[in-house]
Amino acid sequence: MSQLTVALDMMGGDYGPSVTVPAAVQALSLLPDLNLLLFGLKDELAPWLSRSQLDKHPRVQVQYCSQQVGNDDKAAYALRHLTDSSMRNALDALASGRARACVSGGNTGALMAIAMKTLQTLPGVDRPALITRLPQIGGGYALLLDVGANISCSAEQLVQFAIMGEQTALHTLGIARPRIALLNVGAEASKGNEAVREAGRRLSQHGELHYGGYIEGNELFLGRADVIVCDGFVGNVALKTSEGVAKLLLGQRKKSGFLSKFLTFCLKKRLSHLNPDQYNGASLVGLRASVVKSHGSAGSAAFLNAILQAISEIEHDLPASIAHRFDTAPQDSHAR
Amino acid sequence: MSQLTVALDMMGGDYGPSVTVPAAVQALSLLPDLNLLLFGLKDELAPWLSRSQLDKHPRVQVQYCSQQVGNDDKAAYALRHLTDSSMRNALDALASGRARACVSGGNTGALMAIAMKTLQTLPGVDRPALITRLPQIGGGYALLLDVGANISCSAEQLVQFAIMGEQTALHTLGIARPRIALLNVGAEASKGNEAVREAGRRLSQHGELHYGGYIEGNELFLGRADVIVCDGFVGNVALKTSEGVAKLLLGQRKKSGFLSKFLTFCLKKRLSHLNPDQYNGASLVGLRASVVKSHGSAGSAAFLNAILQAISEIEHDLPASIAHRFDTAPQDSHAR
Repeated sequence: MSQLTVALDMMGGDYGPSVTVPAAVQALSLLPDLNLLLFGLKDELAPWLSRSQLDKHPRVQVQYCSQQVGNDDKAAYALRHLTDSSMRNALDALASGRARACVSGGNTGALMAIAMKTLQTLPGVDRPALITRLPQIGGGYALLLDVGANISCSAEQLVQFAIMGEQTALHTLGIARPRIALLNVGAEASKGNEAVREAGRRLSQHGELHYGGYIEGNELFLGRADVIVCDGFVGNVALKTSEGVAKLLLGQRKKSGFLSKFLTFCLKKRLSHLNPDQYNGASLVGLRASVVKSHGSAGSAAFLNAILQAISEIEHDLPASIAHRFDTAPQDSHAR
Repeated sequence: MSQLTVALDMMGGDYGPSVTVPAAVQALSLLPDLNLLLFGLKDELAPWLSRSQLDKHPRVQVQYCSQQVGNDDKAAYALRHLTDSSMRNALDALASGRARACVSGGNTGALMAIAMKTLQTLPGVDRPALITRLPQIGGGYALLLDVGANISCSAEQLVQFAIMGEQTALHTLGIARPRIALLNVGAEASKGNEAVREAGRRLSQHGELHYGGYIEGNELFLGRADVIVCDGFVGNVALKTSEGVAKLLLGQRKKSGFLSKFLTFCLKKRLSHLNPDQYNGASLVGLRASVVKSHGSAGSAAFLNAILQAISEIEHDLPASIAHRFDTAPQDSHAR
């Protein structure tokens, strides 16, 4: 297969093949160099493949599996017992070099655990981080990490996240010298918990990174930073809260009537850059290959965005860039 | 003085007397039983008092102080060295029984530290929590705590917050049997950090509380719970993120033109229940008297709301209700 091969977990997410198959069809028609490896349960996937003629597509290989990771399966269980799941097989395809990136809408904890086991982290990286884009008020995006893969983080891990975020902003957003910030409860040096304060001290002393200090939750969308670093608990709550507010504003008036419909239309337009469908796709960075996590409730357009994101990471060889940065980064005195 | 006496720190917040004096005038005219003790620097406060004739008001006592707590002052510094500040004197008036509630827009950390020193916590309460209202999609409010007074919290503290939140919802929101939830990164029992999981186990076994499990950031405004409990780091980020999204949506289009103005007007109306001005006033609960923290950037209407909240807490004798709940709550096997 060509260099541009992506493995897709067709079963992940709330809607499975009804979402993943149309997205695969579109991705193939948009990108003539793209090859896809599709993994799923035969009973559920085969009818969709046959209807869309993907089963006969020259740039598609299908591998049927006997298992599927459920949303409620614990990571340890999935890792040990679901070894013929679509998720596991898709990640194995990365480990064996048959594909260069994987997209799954499945259980984040299981994806993280299996990816760490099959792909392993890059040298210098303790744990991968889940990174996502946040739309910014002046246009463009900032990156937020971690958004849920690591519930509590040491200062050293937060510094590693900053380095991984910097490389992701540089290579996938094209930002020349990404500005890095730590998400905190205030701007003063004394604010926050010990891990955040210590990470702030280390980042201030890090000669190679463009670190600008703390930002607060109300500044996440103001264009003050390109890479915003926090632990996975805080990042997950911040991300979901902002999605919740955006959806609340769109959904709260169900009235019909022309004026209300018109207002909702205008509001949707105004809110479009906060719509998760438009910026779907959180990546697990810090692994030896690209793994993109699609939102569980993503529709076809959103799953397509996640595939495009995986392709962008392949094209920029993001894992190699991160590895190189860790290799060349000056060893700070605190490093393990 | 009558039972309904509130001490106001006239210097706190970003605008000082220009905001606090008009709010005091309005509160006095709205409530014929209200008495106010005003604390501030003579140079700054006196001209405003004279202009508004508050200095001659029969239900007002003024006490001039020589110091003021700055937004950047550390809590320990304020506690030790700013003993004649307006904030300290206002809290001392509570400790001595001259007033039953205090409102300040000043530095949260200093307010917390001084209040703990002068007022002390109620028996059974380790640390006070900062609690605020969140507007809900179907109308009404939920309470979120802690929103920044306690950066990291033990399971035991989270359980205490749940009890304090329950009493606050019961007595200030009039909710008969408040539904309690823990803010977490997922709904399953295995999610979150150890403190949250352990708090979840204890709350499940607590026969007296109406505990409903975990909720996520996107559910904060959906009316799923009446009291939402988390540590102060997470609560602060969640609250500020939601304010940030709301302000982003209001502020992002500066274009003039009739249509844009009309849309902004409609949007503001739709967003009004998310406007911090309308639900200003976070309370420090768990102390022996009511302390309300007004938003630093609050205007007069918002500061007035904070005063009204303090009065509501006096009328319901919230500290006594919380103390009673801790006194009668069945001792769970984990309690210290």
